[in-house]
Amino acid sequence: MSDESKVIRASGFRWQGVPVTAYKEPDELFRDVTRQTLVGEGQGEGALHFLTRYFEIQPGGWSTLERHEHPHTVIVLRGRGTVTLENRPHDIGAYDAVYVAPGAAHQFRATGAEPLGFLCIVDRVRDRPVPVSE
Amino acid sequence: MSDESKVIRASGFRWQGVPVTAYKEPDELFRDVTRQTLVGEGQGEGALHFLTRYFEIQPGGWSTLERHEHPHTVIVLRGRGTVTLENRPHDIGAYDAVYVAPGAAHQFRATGAEPLGFLCIVDRVRDRPVPVSE
Repeated sequence: MSDESKVIRASGFRWQGVPVTAYKEPDELFRDVTRQTLVGEGQGEGALHFLTRYFEIQPGGWSTLERHEHPHTVIVLRGRGTVTLENRPHDIGAYDAVYVAPGAAHQFRATGAEPLGFLCIVDRVRDRPVPVSE
Repeated sequence: MSDESKVIRASGFRWQGVPVTAYKEPDELFRDVTRQTLVGEGQGEGALHFLTRYFEIQPGGWSTLERHEHPHTVIVLRGRGTVTLENRPHDIGAYDAVYVAPGAAHQFRATGAEPLGFLCIVDRVRDRPVPVSE
């Protein structure tokens, strides 16, 4: 019963039963970011080797400039922004995909009037991010 | 050079450099489905343990009713449809998430006027799907 298939319903970029949490413990390296793990940390989802998280950055906010050995797959769902990949900024918008290679420094910023929302998929078992000095 | 971070740009539910292929080899078990692997099968993406694919089912079409041991994470991006999970249909629409548990029979159908488009994330190394008799 605990590992059944299911639909997790969306409404206004919130998902049924999925808590909205702070991006990380508060510090000075990021601003106005929330995270929700849509699939992978819920009851009965332990068979998945990867987690599908939804991040939202409010207008003007940014994620930590960081690197880690596990790669990321990102799919933008809403808003406009930039992703910096090894010192090079790229404009991104809805449905653009981003591949963050192992060890690459990366940072997301919301540059438009609405939040920048994106899926970020990672291995369940992974190394910890390390902030990069700017 | 071959494992660099990158942005894969979207335009009208097609992605730069990503081929659109038939869902599977043609047979009678599905109708009007295409697949695109957005991230995971491109050059330099071999470090990823999972593939992020975009499936699109044209209005009135359906995917194979099948089961396999690897779980699926699905995020709907556009359109309306139903997903059948172990004989039970569920309506789905944009941003709804679906977890398909190991061994669960499942099938997607596009029921609206526009295509049903969804991301489907799977392990790179996985067992083959087995069609289920209706």
